[in-house]
Amino acid sequence: MVQKQRYSLPAVCIVWQTAMIILFGVFIRYNEEADTHWVEHRHTKNISSDIENDFYYRYPSFQDVHVMIFVGFGFLMTFLKRYSFGAVGFNFLIAAFGLQWALLMQGWFHSLDYTDGKIKIGVENMINADFCVAGCLIAYGAVLGKVSAVQLLVMTLFGVTLFAVEEYIILNVIHARDAGGSMVIHTFGAYYGLSISWMLYRPNLDQSDRLHGSVYHSDVFAMIGTLFLWMFWPSFNSAITDHGDGQHRAAINTYLALAATVLTTVAISSLFQKHGKLDMVHIQNATLAGGVAVGTAAEFMLMPYGALIVGFCCGIISTLGYVYLSPFMEKYLKIQDTCGIHNLHAMPGVIGGIVGAITAASATESVYGVEGLINTFDFKEDFKDMVPSRQGGHQAAGLCVALCFAVGGGIAVGCILRLPIWGDPADDNCFDDETYWEVPDEEEDVPPILHYNNHMLYLTTVYWSCPLRLFSPQTNHTAPNCTILFLVLLSLYPYG
Amino acid sequence: MVQKQRYSLPAVCIVWQTAMIILFGVFIRYNEEADTHWVEHRHTKNISSDIENDFYYRYPSFQDVHVMIFVGFGFLMTFLKRYSFGAVGFNFLIAAFGLQWALLMQGWFHSLDYTDGKIKIGVENMINADFCVAGCLIAYGAVLGKVSAVQLLVMTLFGVTLFAVEEYIILNVIHARDAGGSMVIHTFGAYYGLSISWMLYRPNLDQSDRLHGSVYHSDVFAMIGTLFLWMFWPSFNSAITDHGDGQHRAAINTYLALAATVLTTVAISSLFQKHGKLDMVHIQNATLAGGVAVGTAAEFMLMPYGALIVGFCCGIISTLGYVYLSPFMEKYLKIQDTCGIHNLHAMPGVIGGIVGAITAASATESVYGVEGLINTFDFKEDFKDMVPSRQGGHQAAGLCVALCFAVGGGIAVGCILRLPIWGDPADDNCFDDETYWEVPDEEEDVPPILHYNNHMLYLTTVYWSCPLRLFSPQTNHTAPNCTILFLVLLSLYPYG
Amino acid sequence: MVQKQRYSLPAVCIVWQTAMIILFGVFIRYNEEADTHWVEHRHTKNISSDIENDFYYRYPSFQDVHVMIFVGFGFLMTFLKRYSFGAVGFNFLIAAFGLQWALLMQGWFHSLDYTDGKIKIGVENMINADFCVAGCLIAYGAVLGKVSAVQLLVMTLFGVTLFAVEEYIILNVIHARDAGGSMVIHTFGAYYGLSISWMLYRPNLDQSDRLHGSVYHSDVFAMIGTLFLWMFWPSFNSAITDHGDGQHRAAINTYLALAATVLTTVAISSLFQKHGKLDMVHIQNATLAGGVAVGTAAEFMLMPYGALIVGFCCGIISTLGYVYLSPFMEKYLKIQDTCGIHNLHAMPGVIGGIVGAITAASATESVYGVEGLINTFDFKEDFKDMVPSRQGGHQAAGLCVALCFAVGGGIAVGCILRLPIWGDPADDNCFDDETYWEVPDEEEDVPPILHYNNHMLYLTTVYWSCPLRLFSPQTNHTAPNCTILFLVLLSLYPYG
Repeated sequence: MVQKQRYSLPAVCIVWQTAMIILFGVFIRYNEEADTHWVEHRHTKNISSDIENDFYYRYPSFQDVHVMIFVGFGFLMTFLKRYSFGAVGFNFLIAAFGLQWALLMQGWFHSLDYTDGKIKIGVENMINADFCVAGCLIAYGAVLGKVSAVQLLVMTLFGVTLFAVEEYIILNVIHARDAGGSMVIHTFGAYYGLSISWMLYRPNLDQSDRLHGSVYHSDVFAMIGTLFLWMFWPSFNSAITDHGDGQHRAAINTYLALAATVLTTVAISSLFQKHGKLDMVHIQNATLAGGVAVGTAAEFMLMPYGALIVGFCCGIISTLGYVYLSPFMEKYLKIQDTCGIHNLHAMPGVIGGIVGAITAASATESVYGVEGLINTFDFKEDFKDMVPSRQGGHQAAGLCVALCFAVGGGIAVGCILRLPIWGDPADDNCFDDETYWEVPDEEEDVPPILHYNNHMLYLTTVYWSCPLRLFSPQTNHTAPNCTILFLVLLSLYPYG
Repeated sequence: MVQKQRYSLPAVCIVWQTAMIILFGVFIRYNEEADTHWVEHRHTKNISSDIENDFYYRYPSFQDVHVMIFVGFGFLMTFLKRYSFGAVGFNFLIAAFGLQWALLMQGWFHSLDYTDGKIKIGVENMINADFCVAGCLIAYGAVLGKVSAVQLLVMTLFGVTLFAVEEYIILNVIHARDAGGSMVIHTFGAYYGLSISWMLYRPNLDQSDRLHGSVYHSDVFAMIGTLFLWMFWPSFNSAITDHGDGQHRAAINTYLALAATVLTTVAISSLFQKHGKLDMVHIQNATLAGGVAVGTAAEFMLMPYGALIVGFCCGIISTLGYVYLSPFMEKYLKIQDTCGIHNLHAMPGVIGGIVGAITAASATESVYGVEGLINTFDFKEDFKDMVPSRQGGHQAAGLCVALCFAVGGGIAVGCILRLPIWGDPADDNCFDDETYWEVPDEEEDVPPILHYNNHMLYLTTVYWSCPLRLFSPQTNHTAPNCTILFLVLLSLYPYG
Repeated sequence: MVQKQRYSLPAVCIVWQTAMIILFGVFIRYNEEADTHWVEHRHTKNISSDIENDFYYRYPSFQDVHVMIFVGFGFLMTFLKRYSFGAVGFNFLIAAFGLQWALLMQGWFHSLDYTDGKIKIGVENMINADFCVAGCLIAYGAVLGKVSAVQLLVMTLFGVTLFAVEEYIILNVIHARDAGGSMVIHTFGAYYGLSISWMLYRPNLDQSDRLHGSVYHSDVFAMIGTLFLWMFWPSFNSAITDHGDGQHRAAINTYLALAATVLTTVAISSLFQKHGKLDMVHIQNATLAGGVAVGTAAEFMLMPYGALIVGFCCGIISTLGYVYLSPFMEKYLKIQDTCGIHNLHAMPGVIGGIVGAITAASATESVYGVEGLINTFDFKEDFKDMVPSRQGGHQAAGLCVALCFAVGGGIAVGCILRLPIWGDPADDNCFDDETYWEVPDEEEDVPPILHYNNHMLYLTTVYWSCPLRLFSPQTNHTAPNCTILFLVLLSLYPYG
């Protein structure tokens, strides 16, 4: 199947990248905060200082999100013993393509300047592009090790397109709020990936069982991914919320939800594992569920204890999902979910949507303040007559839209990916970097020298200390055995 | 001992997390900068822009500190060949619990709003909670590999409690300044951990000697921890200092002190090692000592050369500590200090306290400026009559308080942890992830082993198919050798 | 050669660090934004808020750059199977020394306060010092594994000195703009390193061939370096650009250029590799070329599509460089370039300089705005009569200066490094951590596999050294087999 990739992968990369250049040339320009006219814009808008450029509000969060996308998602998937190159490398490739396409797709919906037909981009667009890519990387988790790079690129192309439409409907048409993307990013991304994985079901995947697990150091690499996702999740959920209290509150809520998740994950992992031992799979994944589930409500007045409750529940549900649901889904629903994204993104995402709807519906002016309520839920312009209870309904509607787009889109894209033209690996070559990467030859490399030195020392010692051992079968390096053998041999000589 | 952990670890996690939810529900709310009333607060206080929310002053530093806590401390401890899961996983667990408890404990002392009895939290509380957790993670370094997860949680519960009281006394009652926590965090954390380790002395720990060392890649993992600690230390020391010049100066001083430490660490490591080779243990740890030691004085006018001098000395002292002091302490003082926190945190922490006292005592209005002196040392309200020389005395008093709390508290907590109910590992199971984690089976996976299995198959086949080969030592899988052997054997038979 | 390092490395470290302390004592002070007089300065300059301290504009970028220097460059070089300690450890050492020396050298040229003869430092100086160090770390890439720590320190001492002079000439005398340092940092650093490598040519380097490659996990470690460089490059290129739109635009341009590079790198890597497989060396390195090449023009109105085009081309050129040029250079030009810095830094750096010159020359007031043009190109004071077309010429002149300093300086420093006093490794000891580091003994710890190899080696040795042992078939360590064999042997003795 690599032979098929031989020309298709370079072709897709070059052609699509060329298309991006042309589309960017036609459509994309800097927005007024990134353009050299900013200084004039400042005078016009009476902005007192350069620091009020949106760059300074959002750039640190952007960088954190960027780390989550490339190191977080990339390394989280390195847990397989022989698919670390594919995990981190293909993640890199599809994210780099996806963010360009996302800038265009999201730009057309959100940042189009109707005066000149150009999309004007700034730091917020970069964050949103990274968010959009996150959806596709979540989907990658379901099919990790079972698809080719070209399939991933196709999946990303359609994923980003669907995402942009779905996001526009949820945020602008339905006017749901979704700061951290529980619905827009996680629910969509996860069910999109699961639907694709369902379409690409491989009944004989057990032929790759030898590679479908971790080794000690690959689990440690995966923890790098886990921790960078976990640590920077407060930035993720607060990156595009309102300046000031909005970003501040979203960060606090996420910080707390994630902390609670860790404890319940550890509890359930230990409780449901034989001998009470902890399972690295749970620690690597389920500890993040709280960040997913608090996404929608992070900017609301969820209250610190509310965030803890969300995290508490999600740690339990997500870990139980790994223990019971994933095997069930593989066996009965024919969904092979390599990274368990159903437990980490799908269920917590849906919970996040529901928590968001409830929190929004129960918002009151006494808690939020008159101005605070308007700002938080953006009850302005077309929606200035909105009330919290109706907002709750809109939130729920948003969740449904995300689910429909994800499942519908996933099935459609899955059909496309089943075409036998994409060079996907054979059933007994899944989870194997050898298929798509030049893998260094492990056997020839490590220590021979160290071994050799030790070995020579050992040999000479044995040799000189025991001439008769020539006759003694050398079984292992414990001297006593050797001696006993010798004595036996000696005693036998007379018989000779 | 895992059997004991079977129910105790889940129970502790669930019960304590539930308690956190209840306590947060009763006590914790957002502060005015994270609350939706911020917009009204802005109008009242005449704050011109959202960017003056404390979030934008401190959030980037917070994220850096967060990385230090979870990746820095976590990975620094992965150096042991078979305790990387425990290092990074338990670090994760106790930090996630500790920060919640710290928000409460520190909140009661520092952020309680007496009008409604609620603790009002914002980004500064999150940083302080991470700081508080740092103390407990330092202590973890001393007992790494020798205690169970439940013991670590108990240690953290008491550690955070002691920390909050000690911090309140040092900073508020005594009015010492300690921006980077040389005394409050490092001295306290290190002696707390060392006292516990002393109480938990294991005379037969040498039974785990086979696991008490590093392998090549575990040392590289540990360097990830080292570098993230090293790089982000300027953020650590400047995270809660005064806005403006305070943060700026603290970052510069820390940056310089750490740079100097690296050079002297390398010098001493090479000088005192046989053959002049460098020791990874020193590079991983002693290079950080300068950051610890410059903590208290980082916000003072220590001057760039002052920071370099501090770093210079600490690199030497810390490395010598690893060479001479750690073996001495283990042999004669019965203190087994897995990570050498005495060299990395305890000694540099005390030095930091002393440097802080001297720098404070020698402060003058000509160097600091009138307003600068007042701002830097917070000579306001109750302390408006304070003078630098007296401040120096207060700093020294603060150091003593930290030491007393650490040693006293550590011994008390050590007594509790000696109770035979915590499921700690046996002497021959220390430093072994097998005890508490599902560890992937290394033997079945990577390639050479497959070869090995094949080889055995081959051997047995040959063995049984050819009785005469009893005489033929089967050494490797090259058929020619086998043939040669056979010929030799045949030629020998006549002698028989 | 370690023996030579025995005293030279400690001596160099201690003496140079002491010199730094003295020079810092004489020359370096805080600038007005980091000094306690900031509060007075604020009043004088009528600065409304602490947030307008340069610290808040640049500190997040500084930390990102700091990560690039220590984790990015350090881990990028860990790809060699047995030189990870040297890669990350020596990188750490020379960066820590270099930044101190850079603060002095750059300070004399750029931040000297003529009223009191002191260098006044702040966050921008720290960023510039890190930049300066980057040049030397790039050079390290060419000689990785072939020089001693002392040689690296010497190389850094001269490198920083040359850098500061070259930078002053390019930026201040010639008045070229170079935000991300395509010319000043990358072109200079790369050709400096290549010239040194040329001077230190080792005809018999193939004696170390066994260590001149990667293993699976070392390639994953290197990806950590790659990704942190890639992710934080927007911060690198925007760290010292103008406040406001300058930083904003530089970040966007770099973000886009890097994304495009990833796709073309993958395309070319797959196309030119046998079987269409991807090569980790390309993914690790060539994906970064776009960030280098967009450095100079990042702050200009390069336009988003312009950034994509730059990235597109550099991904292709850099990857082709790895495929064709590096082997050619080693064979015919006698330049051994361990990390391929010619492909990652030299060529993209030169391209960056050219792109910068073209972009500058074609700048117009209609695109930039009147004020924007002046701000972007700093057409002020001595250069207020400058026009874009002439600026283009100055940019090109800057590139030439960088090249001259690099090649000239590199050859001179190479001559110094050829002196037989530096303790460089023998030809058969290159790329080996054993030479300078205490390397943990792999044998006692990890998997049985290693033991297996060892054992087989032992058996073959014994086999050939002892003909009589033909009678003792000893293949593996299972005692039962051994016993059976013995019994058979015993039963055979009577025949003897």
